[in-house]
Amino acid sequence: MTLAEVAKEAGVSLPTVSKVLNGRSDVSRATRTRIERLLETHGYRRRNPGAPHSPLVELVFHELDSVWAMEIVRGVESVAQENRATVVLTRSGTRHAPAPDWIEGVLRRRPLGVVLVFSSLPQDVKRRLRSQGIPFVVIDPAGDPDPGVPSVGSANWSGGLAATRHLTDRRHERIAVITGPEDMLCSLARLDGYRSAMTMAGLTIDPRLVRFGDFRVQGGFEHAMDLLAGPDRPTAIFAGSDLQALGVLEAARLRKLRVPQDLSVVGYDDVPLAQWSSPPLTTVHQPLRRMAEEATRMLLGPADPGRADRRIELATHLVVRQSTAPLGGGPGRRPVDAVTAAGPAGAVGSAERDGRGGR
Amino acid sequence: MTLAEVAKEAGVSLPTVSKVLNGRSDVSRATRTRIERLLETHGYRRRNPGAPHSPLVELVFHELDSVWAMEIVRGVESVAQENRATVVLTRSGTRHAPAPDWIEGVLRRRPLGVVLVFSSLPQDVKRRLRSQGIPFVVIDPAGDPDPGVPSVGSANWSGGLAATRHLTDRRHERIAVITGPEDMLCSLARLDGYRSAMTMAGLTIDPRLVRFGDFRVQGGFEHAMDLLAGPDRPTAIFAGSDLQALGVLEAARLRKLRVPQDLSVVGYDDVPLAQWSSPPLTTVHQPLRRMAEEATRMLLGPADPGRADRRIELATHLVVRQSTAPLGGGPGRRPVDAVTAAGPAGAVGSAERDGRGGR
Repeated sequence: MTLAEVAKEAGVSLPTVSKVLNGRSDVSRATRTRIERLLETHGYRRRNPGAPHSPLVELVFHELDSVWAMEIVRGVESVAQENRATVVLTRSGTRHAPAPDWIEGVLRRRPLGVVLVFSSLPQDVKRRLRSQGIPFVVIDPAGDPDPGVPSVGSANWSGGLAATRHLTDRRHERIAVITGPEDMLCSLARLDGYRSAMTMAGLTIDPRLVRFGDFRVQGGFEHAMDLLAGPDRPTAIFAGSDLQALGVLEAARLRKLRVPQDLSVVGYDDVPLAQWSSPPLTTVHQPLRRMAEEATRMLLGPADPGRADRRIELATHLVVRQSTAPLGGGPGRRPVDAVTAAGPAGAVGSAERDGRGGR
Repeated sequence: MTLAEVAKEAGVSLPTVSKVLNGRSDVSRATRTRIERLLETHGYRRRNPGAPHSPLVELVFHELDSVWAMEIVRGVESVAQENRATVVLTRSGTRHAPAPDWIEGVLRRRPLGVVLVFSSLPQDVKRRLRSQGIPFVVIDPAGDPDPGVPSVGSANWSGGLAATRHLTDRRHERIAVITGPEDMLCSLARLDGYRSAMTMAGLTIDPRLVRFGDFRVQGGFEHAMDLLAGPDRPTAIFAGSDLQALGVLEAARLRKLRVPQDLSVVGYDDVPLAQWSSPPLTTVHQPLRRMAEEATRMLLGPADPGRADRRIELATHLVVRQSTAPLGGGPGRRPVDAVTAAGPAGAVGSAERDGRGGR
C-alpha cells in the first residue's frame, strides 16, 4: 500500500500523511491517530528510520537519584559507543509512564531506539513509536513487565533464595528479611525466595521477622532498630537492597552489635558502594550494567520478528564479602562457596568475587 | 564582512565556506582551519546557532564511574529541562581532552552548548566551537582551569581549612591528612587549607601525618592502616574525599578503633553515600549539583561578553554528622557549630545540615 492510498483512505492530503510520518505536531490529534492506525494496520514502517546525521539512543529515567542510575547509563553508553551512536538522556514522568510531551521530543529527535528505565508506556505512545519505526525496550529491575513490550530484568526469586541459603548454610535459624515495598513484584519475588530457602532448610518463619521496607537506607534502619531491640533478636538479616543493608549496619552499630560476629547482613544489588561499606557487604549481584547493555543491543541489533514479546532475565549471583559469618563460628572462618542463582536466560556469573578496593 | 568575502579571502568557493559552517567533514583540514581562522578574525558568528528541531545540551564526561557523576547529570538535566532542552551525554577522551572525533559529532548535533566535566579543550577544538557559535564551559572540581575557558569550580582551600578547624576546635592536635594525588591543584589547595588551620591553632605538622592518596577507597584504606598502626597514632584524620574516608572507616574497624570515640574522621565532597556510612560522615559539602546547574545556566543564559574568561567558584561548607567528636570528650557531646567556608563568589550555604535518611 502506498502513502497516497493511506491518505485517500484517511481522507487527508498526502502532505498530511507525510507530516505524521515526520513527527510534526501541526496535525490535529484525531487526524494523527487515524493516520497512525492506518499505517499500523497496513504494516507500514519507515524504511530508514531517521538515518540521522548523528545517530542517537534515547535513555529515559523517571528519576535520576538512585544509586544505580549510573550503572545503567554506563551500560547504555558503552553499547551506543560501540555502534557509533550517542546517548540522549531524558528524565520524565513517573514510574508508570513518561510525561505526555516527551513523545513529541522523541519524534523530533528520531533516535535509533528508546531505552526506558523502570517505566511503562501508554498504548498511544507505543503506537506512535511503532508507526515511526522507533523500537523501544524497558529495563525492568522491578520484575513487572508489560507483556507487549520487550524488556530486560533479572532473577529476583533466585537472588532471594541464594541470599537466604547462604545464611541457612551457615547455621543461622532466626533469619529476618526486610524486602522492598509490598506493591512491587521484585519485593515479593525476593521474599518468596527467602521463604523457599527457609522451608528447604526445615526452618519455620517467624512472621515478626518479615518486613516490608522502602528500598532506602531509612527503611532498613528503622526495621533493624526494631528487630534488634529485643532479647529474641535475629542473628542474620537479609536486607533486600544494599541501601537497606547500610541502614541495618548503622542500626547494629547503635545497638552495639558487631557485624559479622554478632549479626550477619546480606544486601541486594551489589551497587558500587556495597564494597565500600564497613564491613564490605555480602550481597546479591544484580547485573545492572549488563541489563542495560543487553537492552541497548536489543535496539541496535538486527530487527527480530519476535521482539515485541521478548523478555530476558539475566542471572543474579551472590557475592560473598565480610558482612556474614557462620553462627557461633569464630571470626576466622571465611565461607568459601558462592551460591550461584542462574536465571531462566541462564547466563551465569559464577564463583566468588571479592571486589574490595578502589574502582 | 559577508561570507562571499571570506570565501574570496580564503581562496575557496562560497559552498566550501558553507560546508565549514555546517560542520561537514568533506573539507580538508588545512582549508577548514584557514576558513575558521578568517571567520574568527572577522568576528563571524552563526546568527542562529542551530535553531535545532530539538534543542540539545551536550554533557561530556571522560569517565562515568565516579560516585558524583550522577550529581552532575542531575544538575545539568534540571537546568536543561527548565529551558526545554535535552541532554546528550558523551563519554570521551581523557582528563585532558575529548577524543579527536568527538568534535565531528558535536558539529553534526549542533547543541546549544557544551558542558565538559573535568576536562580541557585543545586550541583547534575551541576555535571550531567558537566559529560555529557553540558556547562551552568546564565543570572543574579539580581547581585547574584553563584561563581561556569559562569554568565553574568550588572553594577547595576554604574546604580544607574548614575541615581541619573543625578538628582543632575540638582539641585534636595529632591530625593526619590524606589529600588527593600530588598532581592535582585541588589536592594541594585542600592540603594548604589543612596547613593553615594547623598553623592558626598553633600546632606543628608532623610530616609523617601528611599523605597523598588517590581519591579512592583503597588509597584512604592503605594510608589509614599505616597511620593507625603505631602507638603514636593520630586522633583525627581529614580524609580529602568521601571515598578515602570510607577506606579510613574500614581501617579503623580492622584496627579495632571506634569512630568517633577513638578516631575522628572528616571526608570531602558530601556525595550521597556520606550520609549512609556507619557512622554518617562529617564532611565538606562540594556543591556538585549547583556547580552543574551554574555551568548550564552560563551556556543557556543571555550571551555575556566577558564569558570567555569567566570563572565562578561556589562556596563549600562543612556538614557535621557523627564521625567526629571532641578529643577526650564523652560520646554524648555533639558539636553544634558548623564552620562555613565561603568561596570568592560568596554564595554561602550556612548552618549545620544533617542529612541522615533515605533520599
